[in-house]
Amino acid sequence: MPTILGQNQYGKAENRVVKVIRDGDTHHIKDLNVSVALSGDMDDVHYSGSNTHVLPTDTTKNTVFAFAKEYGIESPEQFGIELARHFVNSQEPIGRARIRIEEYSWQRIPASAGGAASGGGAGEHRHSFVREGQEIRTAQVTFDGESVEVLGGLKELTVLNSTDSEFWGFLKDKYTTLREDYDRILATEVAAAWRYQWAGEGVPEPDWNESYAEARGHLLRAFAETYSLSLQQTLYQMGVRVIENRPEIDEIRFSMPNKHHFRVDLEPFGLKNEAADGAVYYAADRPYGLIEGTVLRDGAEARIPVDLTAP
Amino acid sequence: MPTILGQNQYGKAENRVVKVIRDGDTHHIKDLNVSVALSGDMDDVHYSGSNTHVLPTDTTKNTVFAFAKEYGIESPEQFGIELARHFVNSQEPIGRARIRIEEYSWQRIPASAGGAASGGGAGEHRHSFVREGQEIRTAQVTFDGESVEVLGGLKELTVLNSTDSEFWGFLKDKYTTLREDYDRILATEVAAAWRYQWAGEGVPEPDWNESYAEARGHLLRAFAETYSLSLQQTLYQMGVRVIENRPEIDEIRFSMPNKHHFRVDLEPFGLKNEAADGAVYYAADRPYGLIEGTVLRDGAEARIPVDLTAP
Amino acid sequence: MPTILGQNQYGKAENRVVKVIRDGDTHHIKDLNVSVALSGDMDDVHYSGSNTHVLPTDTTKNTVFAFAKEYGIESPEQFGIELARHFVNSQEPIGRARIRIEEYSWQRIPASAGGAASGGGAGEHRHSFVREGQEIRTAQVTFDGESVEVLGGLKELTVLNSTDSEFWGFLKDKYTTLREDYDRILATEVAAAWRYQWAGEGVPEPDWNESYAEARGHLLRAFAETYSLSLQQTLYQMGVRVIENRPEIDEIRFSMPNKHHFRVDLEPFGLKNEAADGAVYYAADRPYGLIEGTVLRDGAEARIPVDLTAP
Amino acid sequence: MPTILGQNQYGKAENRVVKVIRDGDTHHIKDLNVSVALSGDMDDVHYSGSNTHVLPTDTTKNTVFAFAKEYGIESPEQFGIELARHFVNSQEPIGRARIRIEEYSWQRIPASAGGAASGGGAGEHRHSFVREGQEIRTAQVTFDGESVEVLGGLKELTVLNSTDSEFWGFLKDKYTTLREDYDRILATEVAAAWRYQWAGEGVPEPDWNESYAEARGHLLRAFAETYSLSLQQTLYQMGVRVIENRPEIDEIRFSMPNKHHFRVDLEPFGLKNEAADGAVYYAADRPYGLIEGTVLRDGAEARIPVDLTAP
Repeated sequence: MPTILGQNQYGKAENRVVKVIRDGDTHHIKDLNVSVALSGDMDDVHYSGSNTHVLPTDTTKNTVFAFAKEYGIESPEQFGIELARHFVNSQEPIGRARIRIEEYSWQRIPASAGGAASGGGAGEHRHSFVREGQEIRTAQVTFDGESVEVLGGLKELTVLNSTDSEFWGFLKDKYTTLREDYDRILATEVAAAWRYQWAGEGVPEPDWNESYAEARGHLLRAFAETYSLSLQQTLYQMGVRVIENRPEIDEIRFSMPNKHHFRVDLEPFGLKNEAADGAVYYAADRPYGLIEGTVLRDGAEARIPVDLTAP
Repeated sequence: MPTILGQNQYGKAENRVVKVIRDGDTHHIKDLNVSVALSGDMDDVHYSGSNTHVLPTDTTKNTVFAFAKEYGIESPEQFGIELARHFVNSQEPIGRARIRIEEYSWQRIPASAGGAASGGGAGEHRHSFVREGQEIRTAQVTFDGESVEVLGGLKELTVLNSTDSEFWGFLKDKYTTLREDYDRILATEVAAAWRYQWAGEGVPEPDWNESYAEARGHLLRAFAETYSLSLQQTLYQMGVRVIENRPEIDEIRFSMPNKHHFRVDLEPFGLKNEAADGAVYYAADRPYGLIEGTVLRDGAEARIPVDLTAP
Repeated sequence: MPTILGQNQYGKAENRVVKVIRDGDTHHIKDLNVSVALSGDMDDVHYSGSNTHVLPTDTTKNTVFAFAKEYGIESPEQFGIELARHFVNSQEPIGRARIRIEEYSWQRIPASAGGAASGGGAGEHRHSFVREGQEIRTAQVTFDGESVEVLGGLKELTVLNSTDSEFWGFLKDKYTTLREDYDRILATEVAAAWRYQWAGEGVPEPDWNESYAEARGHLLRAFAETYSLSLQQTLYQMGVRVIENRPEIDEIRFSMPNKHHFRVDLEPFGLKNEAADGAVYYAADRPYGLIEGTVLRDGAEARIPVDLTAP
Repeated sequence: MPTILGQNQYGKAENRVVKVIRDGDTHHIKDLNVSVALSGDMDDVHYSGSNTHVLPTDTTKNTVFAFAKEYGIESPEQFGIELARHFVNSQEPIGRARIRIEEYSWQRIPASAGGAASGGGAGEHRHSFVREGQEIRTAQVTFDGESVEVLGGLKELTVLNSTDSEFWGFLKDKYTTLREDYDRILATEVAAAWRYQWAGEGVPEPDWNESYAEARGHLLRAFAETYSLSLQQTLYQMGVRVIENRPEIDEIRFSMPNKHHFRVDLEPFGLKNEAADGAVYYAADRPYGLIEGTVLRDGAEARIPVDLTAP
């Protein structure tokens, strides 16, 4: 045969599972989007269409919903581990499972200042929620029968510094027209994925939710607190902050578009528009700078693929 | 001529204007998307292509940016009024201007618990921001040379009650298979537009920002506090709450998709999945119920078009 | 009661129905997105949550699928008429039904030059299809128990003239910086809705599919053949062409964004970039000019709402 | 330093460049979206914010537009090669350039049957175009100073077989409820990337446009002509067809969502809905099966990353 089969995987993508947990009148919700990708001994189905090694994608969907009931959802990472282990351990032909999860966040609706909340309660409604936050929490769990790789992350976290950003001293060639800027807006939409050291070998799992919340906080504060001479510098500082403060994380990769805010030229209308006085900007869509990079704990192996967080 | 020209309008849509105001180290930002639509004595440009009555859409764009500098942006409503009056009052052929605005909300990035914020400050960074909230504030201002019509509103406000919703006692015909439900999830993505009484005739303007915040709060709480027998009932209660509590608002129109959460049948896997115990749901995309309606102050005229808030 | 209920409607939106018709080995497909909106005697469901007048949106969904089987889909207009009449005629409380339909177009996959197609055939495969065409055909049918209103239309039809477009002689004010242009690209994404005379009163129906194909052809050719001094002029000519050539159509409304293609200034790099020599353009996203307008048969009533075709 | 920098790259993404070439009255257009990613000796900009090795992303944008004028656009592959070589060869710190390009296709607007086209011509307008085809042609060119890697491809090519597809004989576990199907719709949205043998070493370049057109044709016909027992089988046959017929292509990777069309159960309404008679289907959005895989010429190295074509 002049052609051969290379890497392949299959599964059901984007299973939208919502779990409600009731603690009396107080409800908790988890809202996930779960994608399953399985691989293994799959030559036959490609060569001849024989499905004897194929667990239907529909079954992987059913498993997601059933596991949400049976085992609960404490975090996307824990839920992904449960699912990945199940597929590999329960079916001989499946050698590897990769689970990707998005989590959407909900907050309780505040009760009115003076009034009693529905179901009573301290200032917020017990089973009423509003989607809050732009960003989406992400996780990817891969199990190959031996070790587990867990990536945490987030995307669509949009941040902006209205000062403390400069850009100058750059290379110039015959196509360079950009002027140096000593006070610009720096805005980006952070996509980040970080890899946990934990690989499943009898070591206790990290507290995934705490780790996520802390990493997110470090990213936000590092963005705010870095006086930036380039978006690359800010990206690196964001990575450093996570690696230095979270020993359970070994590697982090970013994809950060430079969401350009161009100061508008208002001189034709007799108006000054200086950054120092508070200025008016045009928020551009395309094109945009795109800065991507990995920050690693010294000695750690780089394993997050280049395009994992790409837009 | 066997054909004639009907209603027409033109302008520059989606001008993305960001304004930074500096109060020492503390910055404030306004982030708007402004669309201009002008109409008036425009027969010639349609019939012959003569542009003598046409202010270029490029000029309307420049005006948006220049006005942001000259007059500032206190609220989308005030900014829209400024722009609408300018176009009609400054150009003879323009008889009517409609300004549509979206506002995106930003929050300050919290400083770390113990640490000092960049630029100092009580727990938050002074010029670092994160996009928060799913919803988008909207406004539409129309000026015809005499009176101003102001619509406030919001869209993409996603809310969910995990209980206190039923649906039964409905009409049945030969195509009806739906079972009655006595405990379901009720979720929707609220789009609402409300019309202010104020029409510009020497009466003081409402406090647009306070009015928006209050209307939004009433919508959220009415959603949470209505024990719902149908999404229509919830919609109406949301409208009533705004009309009764905000005397400056005469009319409100909603477009609310029923974001179906179907309880998953887990019986084939030997699992019970009862709402009463906390259940697992499948969040569906399409099709979706779509409930639209207007609530009016008694005696007020209905003027918000049917499709204004449609998805 | 200080508040009252205004216009309201409800139904199932975006029912994605695909119908396959088999003519031996040759298959035909219809691919629609159908949205139902019903209104009538619906006070109770809003005031008290009583659903005794409410046909569930789920039933309207079932009806769409069942009607696709029972009555077939010859055109979106005919299918919409069938559905609208059914809802109003079969349920006392329903006084009005509005059906909106999108149709997606598929072409047969060509067979290889020399080879036999699957299932044989003259140059194309008999039951294999590829989505072709950017544009989406639209229809809206409204029935109020007496007369039927039918709107045909399309959206996302993207067209471009690389010359034969000018823009000059426009109004200038202090915010005008635009330079006149004597040879520019004119590009737009046409959304159009046209209203048929036919209202159901025993008069034979137009051939909806032929009428659609002809109207689409006229729009394309009028765009191509109009030497344009403004996008408004082009819009009007497109409308005139349809009204003059299609006696069954009385009114047409357009929403046409001016998809700006800006000639890039390459002088800093020692390059001329004149339109006359073939130029390089930057295709901008936002902001964009937006031109909207109605063209009517003289004597016809203007009934298409301003925002029907809005983006 | 406890942290180190890993893989990183930067550049201007999504430069929307349109080039018009005039051949008398007959115009030709090329419409591309070009993204530049550069890497090399970039430690300093990450560690200290020094931009001395950083060619601004704005300069990379200018280069795209200037090169479109200077060197023309014959194909996305050729244009990408030109750009990639330029960045690496002209700037010492840049060791590697990766250019990603999308191309949008336009067709001439047909002239009316009897009438003369604008500018005359055989049945079509000479400088008037309409966007046609759903799919987007893609290319990725990477140059590291020594060899060039060229990937061609496409995405959003949506295809459907209304029969000749079965799915049965699959693995069953306790979560399996799917029934076997002997006549189903098979629909997918093909994303494919293929790698050319050509690496720039003095060997003549393939005819990129012919190669693209031929590969696209093989994909379509292989989809149509494969009697399918699984989407994996169809995917593999599509790859085989390209590898066997196009000696210049060594490797191809696919990402193909199974766009489920579920036969609607119409029995509750007394209607049969059998595939054999032509049936009514519900086109589902999410979740969807997702099938991904690589097909290789025997002996070729697998180099296309797993996620390159992922949705």
